[in-house]
Amino acid sequence: MNVARFSIHACKRLYTTKSVTLTVDKFPGYVRHPHFKKQTQQDLTYFESIVGQHGYINNKDEMVPYNTDWMNKFRGQSQLVLMPRTTQQVSAILRYCHDQKLAVVPQGGNTGLVGGSVPVFDEIILNMKNMNRVRSFDSVSGILTADAGCILEVLDNWLAEKGYMMPLDLAAKGSCHIGGNIATNAGGLRLLRYGSLHGTVLGLEVVLANGTVLNNMSTLRKDNTGFDLKQLFIGSEGTIGVITGVSILTPLRSKAVNVALLGLNSFDDVQVAFKKSRVELSEILSAFEFWDIHSFQMYKKHFNHKDVMEKDYPFYILIETSGSNKDHDDQKLTSYLEQMMVNGVAQDGVVAQDQQQMRDLWGIRDGLTEALGKEPAVYKYDISIPVAKIWDCTEDMRHHLKTGGVFGEADSPVINVVAYGHIGDGNVHLNIVTKDLDTRVSDLIEPYLFEWVAKHQGSISAEHGLGVAKNEFLGYSKSPEMIELMKTTKAMLDPKGILNPYKYLPQS
Amino acid sequence: MNVARFSIHACKRLYTTKSVTLTVDKFPGYVRHPHFKKQTQQDLTYFESIVGQHGYINNKDEMVPYNTDWMNKFRGQSQLVLMPRTTQQVSAILRYCHDQKLAVVPQGGNTGLVGGSVPVFDEIILNMKNMNRVRSFDSVSGILTADAGCILEVLDNWLAEKGYMMPLDLAAKGSCHIGGNIATNAGGLRLLRYGSLHGTVLGLEVVLANGTVLNNMSTLRKDNTGFDLKQLFIGSEGTIGVITGVSILTPLRSKAVNVALLGLNSFDDVQVAFKKSRVELSEILSAFEFWDIHSFQMYKKHFNHKDVMEKDYPFYILIETSGSNKDHDDQKLTSYLEQMMVNGVAQDGVVAQDQQQMRDLWGIRDGLTEALGKEPAVYKYDISIPVAKIWDCTEDMRHHLKTGGVFGEADSPVINVVAYGHIGDGNVHLNIVTKDLDTRVSDLIEPYLFEWVAKHQGSISAEHGLGVAKNEFLGYSKSPEMIELMKTTKAMLDPKGILNPYKYLPQS
Repeated sequence: MNVARFSIHACKRLYTTKSVTLTVDKFPGYVRHPHFKKQTQQDLTYFESIVGQHGYINNKDEMVPYNTDWMNKFRGQSQLVLMPRTTQQVSAILRYCHDQKLAVVPQGGNTGLVGGSVPVFDEIILNMKNMNRVRSFDSVSGILTADAGCILEVLDNWLAEKGYMMPLDLAAKGSCHIGGNIATNAGGLRLLRYGSLHGTVLGLEVVLANGTVLNNMSTLRKDNTGFDLKQLFIGSEGTIGVITGVSILTPLRSKAVNVALLGLNSFDDVQVAFKKSRVELSEILSAFEFWDIHSFQMYKKHFNHKDVMEKDYPFYILIETSGSNKDHDDQKLTSYLEQMMVNGVAQDGVVAQDQQQMRDLWGIRDGLTEALGKEPAVYKYDISIPVAKIWDCTEDMRHHLKTGGVFGEADSPVINVVAYGHIGDGNVHLNIVTKDLDTRVSDLIEPYLFEWVAKHQGSISAEHGLGVAKNEFLGYSKSPEMIELMKTTKAMLDPKGILNPYKYLPQS
Repeated sequence: MNVARFSIHACKRLYTTKSVTLTVDKFPGYVRHPHFKKQTQQDLTYFESIVGQHGYINNKDEMVPYNTDWMNKFRGQSQLVLMPRTTQQVSAILRYCHDQKLAVVPQGGNTGLVGGSVPVFDEIILNMKNMNRVRSFDSVSGILTADAGCILEVLDNWLAEKGYMMPLDLAAKGSCHIGGNIATNAGGLRLLRYGSLHGTVLGLEVVLANGTVLNNMSTLRKDNTGFDLKQLFIGSEGTIGVITGVSILTPLRSKAVNVALLGLNSFDDVQVAFKKSRVELSEILSAFEFWDIHSFQMYKKHFNHKDVMEKDYPFYILIETSGSNKDHDDQKLTSYLEQMMVNGVAQDGVVAQDQQQMRDLWGIRDGLTEALGKEPAVYKYDISIPVAKIWDCTEDMRHHLKTGGVFGEADSPVINVVAYGHIGDGNVHLNIVTKDLDTRVSDLIEPYLFEWVAKHQGSISAEHGLGVAKNEFLGYSKSPEMIELMKTTKAMLDPKGILNPYKYLPQS
């Protein structure tokens, strides 16, 4: 796992404390469903007959990394990890669990941020890491098929040799599985350019709760024969089926990449710069990230940063271009940057001259969340709102906390409010840094922020998912009719509710 | 309607005859479901109270264009067209129809090719043309929201003034509705560049069969809060809900466009040219179409064509680039074309020098299907297969028809087999031109071709949909488990089956 690039922007009610409490202690409202059977020796004997003696773990110590998420925020109490090697094994396992009413948690690289990939109680963990073969690749169309347990970076490196790349990139790429990426509809750094997985995923092989194998492994860009059912599983967080195979459209690797960092005076300027970049950089624009001065100060507080500009600015944007012709891209970028400077939109800026400088500039963006992790406590939110509202939301939260008497004085519990994120996707990571966990602060934030986001037709989870952390707040982003239909869909596909229980949808 | 650009590549069992037979006479297996109520005067009185006296048509003559598809291939027997103006009216209509068991056909621009938008029996037609307002546009993100009944070209022109464009383009754009495009998951000419509607559609407002309004009109690029239910309606052909509103991500209009036509000796060369175009033209490549010499001869037979190359070639490709910098694009294209010529991949080629020449080159591609329409009879297929198999499929069909004794001699019933389509999407339009409808020919084609497509993991409907024309053949593209789940989904969302009955899914 490439820890240095591992972005730890987390989610609601996750703090930077290092203690590992059981999830059920952290969320005391959860009660184990009494209709789920408790695992027996007979069950284990059956499972061993399916996956073999090396295909499972039931030693308590060895199970810790599977029972706990990577941030040590969520911990379950499972007594069994199954690691099937084939789709048929997954099918046999689920058919049995369905018959026996044994609850199951599908698990990929376990790099999620909302507790979706670890058990809450004693659910059996179905870890996909042994399903890790590339199945096929069409070098004319760029269509890759692979097992769901393939690690994203492994696939990306495999494709690199053929001149292609995965259409998504995220900090957890060294650990996360492509199946998990799809099950959580991962966003990441390439979404601006290559679009969402709903467009790039062409086919899926899914095992349903009752063991039925749904073979929808199309390798076609176009197929209008019936409901596009695979779409339901993209972003379903393992609650209606287990993804075992993936067919995905991969783009050609870019021959030329540029990275630039600009300092700006206002969020209006950030928006002007973004809009102009879409016109001038257009087809070569591959990332447009921003952070505010408060984020940058936090970064500089914790890391040994060598300033690349003469002074600080209220806002920063990081722009990346990816194209097929270095000269053309340089010309476009230079022309764009000149316009930004001449028109006073940007106050200062630098362009990376080599690979190391590119890594350094990206390093600031990647380091923001790590810096926050070094503060005593942070309330973290991942929200999606129209671009124009991103800064209003942040400013409003600062004002709200000040008038609420918890921010702005030396002895205030709130240290700072910092914001950064993906401008191109209308996705901001809003962090309230505090001296300690404090209900005076959290009561001011929630439900105030959720209501603010709902009022502006935003989403309370842009890219991190729902898991156990946000499922009860779904009503702020989705209408009662939508939630009702989600529940009906869940009941249709998993009538006994054995797949990833206690999560995703509101339990009440 | 821009008739000149109206591509009439059709589908199975659609011939170029001009007589309009009732659909039920053409497909005698269909029987009106006895559980559907027959419309009464009381029903009409209720509907008038909802849509007003100008919101419906029940005059038999005036109803002809609504009862008949644009190709005059399908004709239903509806006695009522309702033209609601608001989502609430659609909701009230469907709630009533659901209560009363009145069957309904949602209808957009009625430009489909598989009979999906006209009734089979006496279903009430719910025409969306009066819901035609743009609702909002965000000029920073390019996100447009609009009523479902907006005409595609109207939206495209509206966006042009703002420097944006619709992410899809098709020959029927002058008539088709954006709601219909989404309900049929239209592909078209921009898919290679901007991807499918599953990626670009951000939100939908849908009225379910029972009148429930499902508000999922997100204007966010990222939203991971629950199942992405809107995806189910994309390509559902009006069978599970009526799309009333649309939120879609629109790209910026390209400042520079180039069009080139090349002549090649083999399909292998076509594939080399395509693969190379992805590397060299990369981010500016916006179309890569092909046709064979037989298509071109058919075109020249029916149109007054002025040759742009000195001789004919077995294959032609039409390449379009769209970018933000004319000089850069010209350089890339020139370099690519030089490589194609120097390496002997292309034998000859021309590049359009102005808008008129661009239209002329596109005119050949658009005219192919019109030319076929002038032949006595054509068996038409729209299939999706891996690019490498496109020509095998065509060659195999020629061979199969020759060995079957119906092609190759002066007195053979088959005049020619012609193929053209979207190489970039692996989508070929295969046409068997005959002297007359002939069961000797059709029995040789079917199910032979469907089996061939299924064997190569292809799709029997790449972009045209299922409608009444292909629904019984779904099994060639989808597994029994998939079809079963489709039926369960239909039952979940439309338990009384009132929405677009007799179509889409196999009736048996």
